[in-house]
Amino acid sequence: MPASDVPPTHPRYLSLITRERIVAGVERGVTSPHGLIAHGRGEAFDYLLGEATHLFAHEAIAEAAKVLKAARHPVISVNGNACALAAGDLVALAGATGAKLEVNIFHTSAEREQAIRNMLLEAGAREVLMPGRTHAIQHIEHNRKWVHPEGILIADVVFVPLEDGDRCGALVQNGKTVITVDLNPLSRTAKTAQITIVDNLTRCLPLLVQAVQALNTGTTDNANANADNANANANVNVNVNVNANANSLPDRTHAPLYSNSRTLAEAERTLRTGTGN
Amino acid sequence: MPASDVPPTHPRYLSLITRERIVAGVERGVTSPHGLIAHGRGEAFDYLLGEATHLFAHEAIAEAAKVLKAARHPVISVNGNACALAAGDLVALAGATGAKLEVNIFHTSAEREQAIRNMLLEAGAREVLMPGRTHAIQHIEHNRKWVHPEGILIADVVFVPLEDGDRCGALVQNGKTVITVDLNPLSRTAKTAQITIVDNLTRCLPLLVQAVQALNTGTTDNANANADNANANANVNVNVNVNANANSLPDRTHAPLYSNSRTLAEAERTLRTGTGN
Repeated sequence: MPASDVPPTHPRYLSLITRERIVAGVERGVTSPHGLIAHGRGEAFDYLLGEATHLFAHEAIAEAAKVLKAARHPVISVNGNACALAAGDLVALAGATGAKLEVNIFHTSAEREQAIRNMLLEAGAREVLMPGRTHAIQHIEHNRKWVHPEGILIADVVFVPLEDGDRCGALVQNGKTVITVDLNPLSRTAKTAQITIVDNLTRCLPLLVQAVQALNTGTTDNANANADNANANANVNVNVNVNANANSLPDRTHAPLYSNSRTLAEAERTLRTGTGN
Repeated sequence: MPASDVPPTHPRYLSLITRERIVAGVERGVTSPHGLIAHGRGEAFDYLLGEATHLFAHEAIAEAAKVLKAARHPVISVNGNACALAAGDLVALAGATGAKLEVNIFHTSAEREQAIRNMLLEAGAREVLMPGRTHAIQHIEHNRKWVHPEGILIADVVFVPLEDGDRCGALVQNGKTVITVDLNPLSRTAKTAQITIVDNLTRCLPLLVQAVQALNTGTTDNANANADNANANANVNVNVNVNANANSLPDRTHAPLYSNSRTLAEAERTLRTGTGN
């Protein structure tokens, strides 16, 4: 069904176009039908959040940018919904961060894995790693345990949006720093990841790419200070090159460190009360 | 997947059977894949409401029954999700109210329109009006503007469950009194309709049919009092035959008039806090 069926004048055009992307993903074999229902659930949480990128999300985006920038071996784990919604932005994030793209899906399907890979390549990806059947992470049993030996297996930081809670937990237990995107701050994924961006994937990904690009073009002092700031955060166990210049952050002692539990508490308050930052 | 796949002993049997109906609707060409997403969103709101028909919904059901009963030319607008979930109840509502059934869907598809019509006929409908390409309502651009000249075009009251906000607003702007069913009290549809039943369609429709049947079998005095009560509600601009017998409603000055904004506020409080009536 063509996206043009929805008139651009429709007040909910963006939400409906996003829905079109997921449906198109099913049609081209990228998204599972289960993914449609998961997307609908996300829409409900987005409604309760006012369909806005809140301060708590901006803070998580800034922290994610720093951690991705400071990572030695970042990997972006891509499933069907993430690919259908934001293949181009995921490729842009890989380009900005130097992260590898790796396909990983919940419901076993070699065809769907390949369809995701093809869509990422069409979106401009230079390389897309596929899960083999030779290397697995620990603490998880099903199809999602399989990883690529040059990708998630050796990653220090994994960006894994719209993830299942089981696998998110397994990645953390395997020593990875996990950054996720989840509209439900009460989900196991949201609670398990070290950095949770509670926002719509299509809204936050361009912001995350911009934040990384800003770090890329910033001064060395700022970049080091940002890396140090990330390292100082007890929630994030990423190994970074600590070379802070204290002069570049005069208010550093007063700058609040990122706290994912605070992010989730503020997101939950916002969706429960309809207020908040 | 056959409905029998879900054991009746499953704690979430009703929710799962409802999901089966929507999936079956896609399979027989009644529901669009987009409808699955919308259903997933509804499921999330229903969870937050405790999957219960709250007092605010009962009040809206009672008001809807009165307005439908008092209408000169009521029409039930049926889309793919409503048909897949509740074809039989929609036909029963048409029978109880004398309303006409008219097919109207968001995404243009003559085949799907016909599939919906067939499903309603199978469920016992004697007549199902189809949107032509000769008559349209104002204030809306896409496929949903088309109406049947003996149906929505001349309707004073339109019952249109699970509706898109754009079309709901257009119906109101065309002078119709609009009754909707929407699990999301924050939606544009919920806010635009004059009467919004914030409840699961499959729970509230049998109750609405019962409420209309109770009015049908009530005394003349009660029927008139109900019509007057509906007319007195500033939110409902339906033309009714005002012939109230004040004696039949001794506590009338103390009886609260229906307020849709109060309904929505109570529904929102309930789903955000998990409490409420």
